[in-house]
Amino acid sequence: MRARVTHQDVEDIAVGGAVLGAGGGGDPYVGKLMAQRAIDQYGPPELIPLKDVPDDKTIMVAGGIGAPTVIIEKIPGGEEAVYVFNALQKLLKKKAYAVMSAEVGGLNGTIPIQVAARLKIPVVDADCMGRAFPEVQLVIPNLHGVSATPLIIADERGNEAIINTISNEWTELLSRTIATKMGGIALMALYTMNGKTAKKATLAGMLSHTRRIGRTLRSARQEKKDILAELLKVTKGTTLFVGKIVDLDRRLEQGWNRGQLTIQGSGEYGGETMSIQFQNEHLIARVGDKVLATVPDIISVLDQDTSMPITVEALKYGLRVTVIGIPIHPAWRTPEGIALGGPKHFGYDVPYQPLAVNGKARKTHVASTRH
Amino acid sequence: MRARVTHQDVEDIAVGGAVLGAGGGGDPYVGKLMAQRAIDQYGPPELIPLKDVPDDKTIMVAGGIGAPTVIIEKIPGGEEAVYVFNALQKLLKKKAYAVMSAEVGGLNGTIPIQVAARLKIPVVDADCMGRAFPEVQLVIPNLHGVSATPLIIADERGNEAIINTISNEWTELLSRTIATKMGGIALMALYTMNGKTAKKATLAGMLSHTRRIGRTLRSARQEKKDILAELLKVTKGTTLFVGKIVDLDRRLEQGWNRGQLTIQGSGEYGGETMSIQFQNEHLIARVGDKVLATVPDIISVLDQDTSMPITVEALKYGLRVTVIGIPIHPAWRTPEGIALGGPKHFGYDVPYQPLAVNGKARKTHVASTRH
Repeated sequence: MRARVTHQDVEDIAVGGAVLGAGGGGDPYVGKLMAQRAIDQYGPPELIPLKDVPDDKTIMVAGGIGAPTVIIEKIPGGEEAVYVFNALQKLLKKKAYAVMSAEVGGLNGTIPIQVAARLKIPVVDADCMGRAFPEVQLVIPNLHGVSATPLIIADERGNEAIINTISNEWTELLSRTIATKMGGIALMALYTMNGKTAKKATLAGMLSHTRRIGRTLRSARQEKKDILAELLKVTKGTTLFVGKIVDLDRRLEQGWNRGQLTIQGSGEYGGETMSIQFQNEHLIARVGDKVLATVPDIISVLDQDTSMPITVEALKYGLRVTVIGIPIHPAWRTPEGIALGGPKHFGYDVPYQPLAVNGKARKTHVASTRH
Repeated sequence: MRARVTHQDVEDIAVGGAVLGAGGGGDPYVGKLMAQRAIDQYGPPELIPLKDVPDDKTIMVAGGIGAPTVIIEKIPGGEEAVYVFNALQKLLKKKAYAVMSAEVGGLNGTIPIQVAARLKIPVVDADCMGRAFPEVQLVIPNLHGVSATPLIIADERGNEAIINTISNEWTELLSRTIATKMGGIALMALYTMNGKTAKKATLAGMLSHTRRIGRTLRSARQEKKDILAELLKVTKGTTLFVGKIVDLDRRLEQGWNRGQLTIQGSGEYGGETMSIQFQNEHLIARVGDKVLATVPDIISVLDQDTSMPITVEALKYGLRVTVIGIPIHPAWRTPEGIALGGPKHFGYDVPYQPLAVNGKARKTHVASTRH
C-alpha cells in the first residue's frame, strides 16, 4: 500500500517548505491549516512517487498567486483551489491522475495536498521548482517547453479567467495582473503535463525531501540536538551569516513584497554587515560588496535560537537571525536554468556563483539549541 | 431584400460615430479603413433591424477595449476581432445569428461591420449605448441584468483570456487590466443575448441613426448648406460654446486618456471660458462654475469651420472649435441610467440636468460653412 500524507506530514512539509521557500511562498502556518483541515475532513491523500505516474496519465498543478502578505489577512478557502482544478479538468476534458505542486516552498507546497485530499486523488512526490520563486514562468517545466496554459485563475467571490498565451512569460504577466485586481491573491490550476513529460521536466522526490527537512527540525528539537547542524546536514547547506536585523525596507509593489534587509553581524561576524535583496523570496546576499549567494540557490533566514525559518513578511527589526545558503537542485544549475532564474532575471548584474554542496561555514559554527 | 452596409455607409457611420462618440471611441479613420477593407474583400454585410432578429436567436457583441491613443499607433487587424467572435461562439456552442455594436461612438461602431462582412452574418441596426463610454459595464444591457461574460479578450500576438465574473463591474476591472498588459488595446467578444432580450435591452436603430448623422454632414458639405445647422437638426442638439482651445492637459492613466480641455470663447462667447473634463469621452462641460452639460448626454467638440468631430486624441492647442450638446437616448434618462453613467459615477459631485431636446443655442447661431 502506498504512503499517505498525514496530518503530521503536513506540519513537517510546511516547515520544510518555509526553509526551501527562501523567505517566500507565504506563511507556512496558513498553508498547514488549510491542508490539515482537508485531511481531517476527507482523509489523508496518497503520496505517489513521480516514477509511478503512468506516462500517458495527466497531472496538473494547483497553487496560489499573489503577495504572501495579503494571504495572512485573507486566508483562501480550499474550495477555490478545488474549483479551479476541476474547471481545468473539465476544460481539457481530461481526468487528472494526480495533482502536483508548483513549488514546495511555502503555501504552494501544501495547496496540492488539500486538493488531493478533497478530490481523493494522489499528490505527486515532486515539484516544478525545488524552492519558491515569485513568477509563474520560473519553473523547470518551462525549460522543457511545457506551457503553463490553459491556466484557470479564480477568486473567492466567483470571478474567474481562463488564459491561453504564446509564452509562460505572458502567462505570468496576465495572471499576475488579474490576481492583483482580484484583491492580491488568487487560486490557479496550470501546467498540465502527462507522466512522461513530468518525469523529465519536474523534480522527483521534492515533497518527501521537504518533509524530511521539517522532520529533521522537529526531531532535533525533541532530541535536544544542535538544530542548525542537523538542518545544514539534511539540506547540504552552509551558514552564511549570524547577526541582528537592523534595517528593513519592505514594500508592496505590483503584487510583490519587495525590499532589502540589513543584518549587523554578531559574535565572530561582528563588524560585518549583510544585506539581502528580496522580491517575495531572498535573491542576493552580500557582506559589504562581496556576494555570498544568489538565486537560484536558496537563501534562508532562520531564527538564531530555534533555527526555524522566517518568511519575508515576518521579518522585523531586532530579530536575531542565522542566514544559511542551500544549494539548489542541479536542474537549475545549467546555462538555461541560470538564464531563467538567475540574478540577471531579477535585474542584478551579478554572475551566479554556485554555492558549494555541504560547504563550510565562513566562521566557527554557532549552534542553535533553544529546544 | 435587406439593406447592406456599403463602403460609403462605413464612411458615414465612422463620421456619425465620431459625433456621438463625445470625443472617445477611437479614431474614426482607423475604424473606417478596417471595415472598408473587409467589405472590399468579403462583400457588404446585411444590416438587420433589431425587430427582425428572432427572439430565440443569439447575438453577440464585438469590439475593442483600451486607450484610443494606442490604436493610432497600433491598428488592430480584422483577424483578432473575428478570432474572438468565433472563439465565443465555440465556447458557448452557439451560432451567432448576427453581430452587434457595444457603442456606435468611434471604432466600436465599425468593428462589428468588419466581423459581419468576414463571417457573412448580418450586423444588427442597434447598439448598447447610443454614444461611446469608457467602461465595459456602462451599457443599457447592464440595466437589464445582461452579463458581459463569458467574455473573450485577445491580442494580435495570440494571447487570450476567457473571463467569467459575478458582475459587469468586475468584468470591466479584469478586462481593462488585461488589455493594458496586452499593450493598451485588445479585441473582445461579449454580451451574448438572445433576440428577445436584445429587443428590450439595446437601442434599436442606432447604427442607421449614426449613418444618418454622417450622411447629413456629407450632404450639407456637398450642397453648401450650413453644416452645423443641419447637424444640430439631425442630432436634436444645441450649440454650447464657440472658441479656441487655449489649454489641454491630457495624460494616459491606467489605460485611459484623462484630462481637461480649456476653450476661450470668441465672437458672442468672448470673455467666457469653457472647461471640459474627459476620460476617453467628454464628461462635463462648464462655463465658469456653471455646468452646461454632463454625461450621459453627449458633449461633442467640432472643428468650427467644417463641423467635423474632433476626437480627444486629436485635440490640440489653438484649434477653433464649436462645442455641441446632444441629448442622450431616453433609455439612459432613468434614475438607474443616471446612477450607472451619470456624473457621480465618474467622481463628479454634480447633478445630471438633462439637455433639452432641440434646445436653443445660448447665443446667436454661428454657421459652419467651409465646404
